Order: sequence, then structure tokens, then C-alpha cells
Amino acid sequence: MRVLILGGDGYLGWPTALRLSSQGYEVAVVDNYMRRNIMREENVEPLYRVPNLHERVHLWKEHSRKEIFVHIGDLRQWDFLARVFDEFQPQVIVHYAEQPSAPYSMLRREASLLTIENNLTVTSNVIFAMREFCPDAHLIKLGTMGEYGTPNIDIEEGWINIKHNERQQKFLYPRQAGSLYHTTKIMDTDLLWFYVRTWGMRVTDLMQGPVYGLFTEETVVSDNLLTLFSYDELFGTVINRFIVQAVAGYPLSVYGKGGQTRGYLNIKDTVSCVQLSIENPADEGELRIFNQFTETFSVSELAEKVLRVGKDLGIEVVVKKIENPRQELEEHYYKPVHTGLLELGLSPHYLSDGVLEEMMKFVLLYKKDIDRHKIFRGTKWS
Amino acid sequence: MRVLILGGDGYLGWPTALRLSSQGYEVAVVDNYMRRNIMREENVEPLYRVPNLHERVHLWKEHSRKEIFVHIGDLRQWDFLARVFDEFQPQVIVHYAEQPSAPYSMLRREASLLTIENNLTVTSNVIFAMREFCPDAHLIKLGTMGEYGTPNIDIEEGWINIKHNERQQKFLYPRQAGSLYHTTKIMDTDLLWFYVRTWGMRVTDLMQGPVYGLFTEETVVSDNLLTLFSYDELFGTVINRFIVQAVAGYPLSVYGKGGQTRGYLNIKDTVSCVQLSIENPADEGELRIFNQFTETFSVSELAEKVLRVGKDLGIEVVVKKIENPRQELEEHYYKPVHTGLLELGLSPHYLSDGVLEEMMKFVLLYKKDIDRHKIFRGTKWS
Repeated sequence: MRVLILGGDGYLGWPTALRLSSQGYEVAVVDNYMRRNIMREENVEPLYRVPNLHERVHLWKEHSRKEIFVHIGDLRQWDFLARVFDEFQPQVIVHYAEQPSAPYSMLRREASLLTIENNLTVTSNVIFAMREFCPDAHLIKLGTMGEYGTPNIDIEEGWINIKHNERQQKFLYPRQAGSLYHTTKIMDTDLLWFYVRTWGMRVTDLMQGPVYGLFTEETVVSDNLLTLFSYDELFGTVINRFIVQAVAGYPLSVYGKGGQTRGYLNIKDTVSCVQLSIENPADEGELRIFNQFTETFSVSELAEKVLRVGKDLGIEVVVKKIENPRQELEEHYYKPVHTGLLELGLSPHYLSDGVLEEMMKFVLLYKKDIDRHKIFRGTKWS
Repeated sequence: MRVLILGGDGYLGWPTALRLSSQGYEVAVVDNYMRRNIMREENVEPLYRVPNLHERVHLWKEHSRKEIFVHIGDLRQWDFLARVFDEFQPQVIVHYAEQPSAPYSMLRREASLLTIENNLTVTSNVIFAMREFCPDAHLIKLGTMGEYGTPNIDIEEGWINIKHNERQQKFLYPRQAGSLYHTTKIMDTDLLWFYVRTWGMRVTDLMQGPVYGLFTEETVVSDNLLTLFSYDELFGTVINRFIVQAVAGYPLSVYGKGGQTRGYLNIKDTVSCVQLSIENPADEGELRIFNQFTETFSVSELAEKVLRVGKDLGIEVVVKKIENPRQELEEHYYKPVHTGLLELGLSPHYLSDGVLEEMMKFVLLYKKDIDRHKIFRGTKWS
């Protein structure tokens, strides 16, 4: 089966490509290095050097004897996108090709507009390319749990049945996100839902929580196959960032009260969730939504975990509460359903002390490369 | 008070400008003639020639001694937009500057992408310009009743309180629209709601139903001050189109069963609703939503009305049911609340036979100019 991975150079795109390639799928990856370019422009860098996609695919072939096809180009350009779809004739499209940083999307007008324009143009182009070249293909789109925000009622898995004045209607669960980036994901969902209803597309929208971790089964075989790992405020997810801050002796920055609670998952589970979604496709005319995370933590709980594991390794970790630069509830109700992927067979990798210790030991190898000035930026929402 | 009208050349923008100018507001209009350009490209033309904005403003000044400032340019271009905001320092912004045709947005990929890109870029630019140049100004944004679609429960005025598992939360009323154009209006609302919460903007989002009519108090004084009037499938709203079809002896095209029900309003009420919204501004940090229509009709009911009024004028009108080229429910529940604007003091102009007769008599003057080939196109949704 032919799987096209859009955004195949990224933190999640690359491990997804290797998982699917190792499982016998015919895989092509597309990327325009937007993430790497933005990182350079904003003076943040990954923890360790990551070879370019051509180099990585070459190394993967040496290791696995399996070929991954690489297309470098901008999916906002229809001619490029159409050529890729026409040549590869994908049966599954995994769409990670979006500007993925919430703080970046709040930096300034140009960054906001880039996020809107890139994310929506690519999603729109993908919809039209599927219609033209592979109308029966299955689109797996990465959404985010952040679309839901932190409502005062239970968060259902994508849909909610509303009873009102003695009548009822099933709706997309109402969404209100905490950043411009997350808002573009809501817009993606709006767009997909319209074309699912109108053109009968098959779509799985994965509402993913913040991902952590360094290793998947396939990337761990060589340092040069590891995925892009960020520890800066713009692109580093919170657990990854805390691990690096701990190793660098940089206080863990907890915004405000630290009661902000989210659903987290290990990068190993991300690739499994995508694989499970491919193996169990959405129906024609179905927008299937899964809440993709395995357990919930508050920021303070995460800081305490990292502090405890650091102590066991002889690292003194300091937690520092700072004024919250974001607009968000610091204490709130949070009860999201997440049964869909478990029912498909997901076996979660939970956030044990052992997992944190393994990450911390690895990051210790790169301690001298951590640039403390790149960690914190204090991007303000207001 | 300084009011900036974005999209001031359009069917609604122009009468709004004249109303506010006549009422003593200091008015500036902005347009890039996108609507006129698209019409020409798609080989549809208005019923009668409409002078350009500079010419119309000149005529208005001769008539009223009041000046309206004109800026011709593309609001997607930040430099242009910023200059207009910086110079005029608006206290109110009325935002009509969007690609407004649902069928056009469904024509082809380029038209769809233009609709997404224009509508969202302009809204985003307006948000950032307000923040930079007039953070306390009041934005009045034209949304559409079409954002709600046709749910099986009562449509509330923008917001709904959801009780779920013994807890509750107020949400934006869930939206699912019937065209790509309407979907971009949902995205506009998503975007505005995010920045209202984050930056404390003042926004009124007017969920307007299809507008009909030719005359407002101010435009009726001279043929050259009349607003752009379309009768083609792309830009003609249904009642206006039916009137022209009746006069031209062209069967009224009812899609499918004709039970599609919407909330309609007279163009006179549109300008009053905008004026009322200006006089009663939204609070800081408030996204205020009004459902802007005065009465509901099914398409079949509208066709019958036009048929009856035609008969009185000695015109034989034929109603023709045709296969529905759109994806929509042809019979459905429809009960939307619309009390907000009435409470502000709106005195509706209802769709009487007299109103239809006045329109029909006026259109009869232009009977020889109606191009029957421009009426129907059958733009398919699927």
C-alpha cells in the first residue's frame, strides 16, 4: 500500500515514515524544510544535528534495504503537489505539513499570517489533489487536542449530541483554541468536514496531545536516524524541554499556577496511532475523529516528575514559577474521552520514571551542546 | 465618528456608506473591485451599469454636500491596509471585504482557494491593523446565517449553553455550512473569537440571511446612486434573481423539493442593522453575535409569491423544479432566534406583495437589458 507522508522531515513525520516503511508500506515523504528554516531564522536549533531527508533516506536504505521516496517542495504550490500525487498515486495520505508551533504563531503578524496561509492552503490543495488523483484514498490529518481548549464539560471524541428544547442534533464538538496555530487546526477541521459531507472523502482527524520522547523502534538503530529534537520554547514540547532544562541546570519554567492540564503521549504511540488508523480506514463520507493521547498531567506534575528523576540521577533540578505570558486557564476542569484508538488496539507507553530517565541519560550525552540562551523566550500572547 | 467600510463598492457596502454618510458619520470606503472583476471574468454582468466608486462618491457629494473618502486597493496587501488605517484612524470598521458568492466558491479549485485566501487574509490583516492603529475601535463583521446550516435543533443567536454529564459550558453555537464560501465565514468567526478572547477586541458578528431589494432611502434619489444589482446564479441572491427571471419570462428555477428555508431581509434593514450595531457597540473583549434577518421563507414560498405578484402585473411566471446541483437538505427543521437587533430597535421591512411589485416594476424598465444566458449556470456542488 502506498502512503504519502506530507511533512516527512518533522519530529513526527520522520518516525512515521520509518515505521510504515519497516512494516512493508511503500512510502514517499514530502517536505519543504519550513520547520528547519523557521528555526534558523528564529535562532533556535535542534539538540543534535539531523541529516537532510535525502541523507536520512539513504541511511535508512543501507540499514533496512527499504526505499523511501523523497520529494522536496512546497505543497502550497499546486503544480508541485499535483505532480507528486499524480506520480505516486497514494492510497493513504498522512498530513503533518503544517506550521506546528503555537508560540511562533503568536510572535508577530507575519508569523501568524504564514501559519494561516500555509496550513489552510496546504489542506485545501490536498483536498483538491485527492479529488483529482485519488478520490478513494484515506486522508489522515493531524489535528490537536488544543482545538477543544479547556471547556468545563467532558470532552468527547470529536462529536457531541446536543439536546436542546426537546430536539437533538449531533455536531462537531464545539472548539475554542488557545493559540492562533491551534485555531488554524480548527479551521482545517471545518474545511475537511465540509468536503467530507460534500464529496464523500474518507478522513481521520487525529486530535493529538503534546508528544514527548526521542526514540521509536526504527529511529533508535542509528544516531543519524533519530528525529529532529527541539528544546526551545518555539518548537520544543513541554516534556522534552523540561528534560533538557534539567540537564542544563536551567530552572523548569512553570507558567503561572501550573495547573494547565493536557493529554500527553509518547512518540512511540504517535506512530502506532497513525499505523492503526491506516489499518482501520475511515469510511467513504466519514470524518472519523480520535483523541490521540494516553494520559493527562498538569504542568506542575510534569515538573515534579522531572525533578524526582533528576534527583535519582544526581542532577539538581529547580522549578521556577514565572508570570504566565499566555492567555489560558491555569486551573480548570479537564476530562477528555480517549477510547477510540485503544479500541483499535493501541498499547500505550506511559510516562514512567524509567522513560524520563532514559531520555535524560541520552540528553546528558549532548549536555555541552545545549545553548541555554535558546531555551526561553517568553513569547507573549497579549 | 469615523467609519471605515471595507468592501464599500458592493451590493451592501455602498448603501451602508450612504446611510452612514447621510447620518453625519465621517465615512471612508475601501474596495479593490474584486466582485466586479470576478463578474466580468465569469461573463456575468449587473442589471444596469453602476459608475465606479470615485464617480459615485462625486455624485453623492453633489447631491448631499457630504464627502466620502475612497481608497482603491487590495486589503490582502498589508502596506495598503496599514496606510488606510493609519491615515483615517477609524473608530468603527464595517467589514464586507470578502468574496461573497457560494456558487463561485464551488466552481473550481482556483475559485475556492481565492475565497479562502482573500477572506481569511483580509480578516487577519484587519485584526492586526486594529491592534496597531485603533485598538479600541469596534469591528462590525458580516457573517452569514449559512454558518449554522440547517440543524435539527433551534438556532440560537450565536451562542449555546450545553449541559453535558451534569456540567455545563457556553460555546459558540456549533456550525456546519453548506458551501466553501460559508465555511470561510465560520473560519472568520473562529479567528475573531480567538483574538477577542486574547486581545480584548470589540466585535459584532452579523449572521445575515440572504438580502433582497434595490432601494434604500439614500440610493433611491438617483439612478446613478443605486447599488450593484446582480441577477445571475453566482452573485444574484434568490429573491432578486426570481424577480428578474419573472420579468424575462425565464422559469423560476427551484432546486429539488424547494423546502430549503432561510431567513431573509430587505436591503433597507441591512443598513439599519449596521447602523444600530454602530450606535450600540460591543464591549471590550466581547464577540457579540446577531442573527440578521426578519422572516423565514422556503424557496417554494418565494417562487409562489413572485408568481402571484407577476400575475397581478400581467406577467406570466413559470416555476420549474430542477434537479438540485447543490448538496443540501431540501426539507428540514428551521427555527432560528432573531431578537437581538429587534431589541436594539430594528423596524423590519417585510416582504409584502407591494415590495415585490415595486422591484418588478423597476426591473421591467431594464427588461431589454436582461441577458437570459447569464441567469442559470447549474454550478454543481459534487
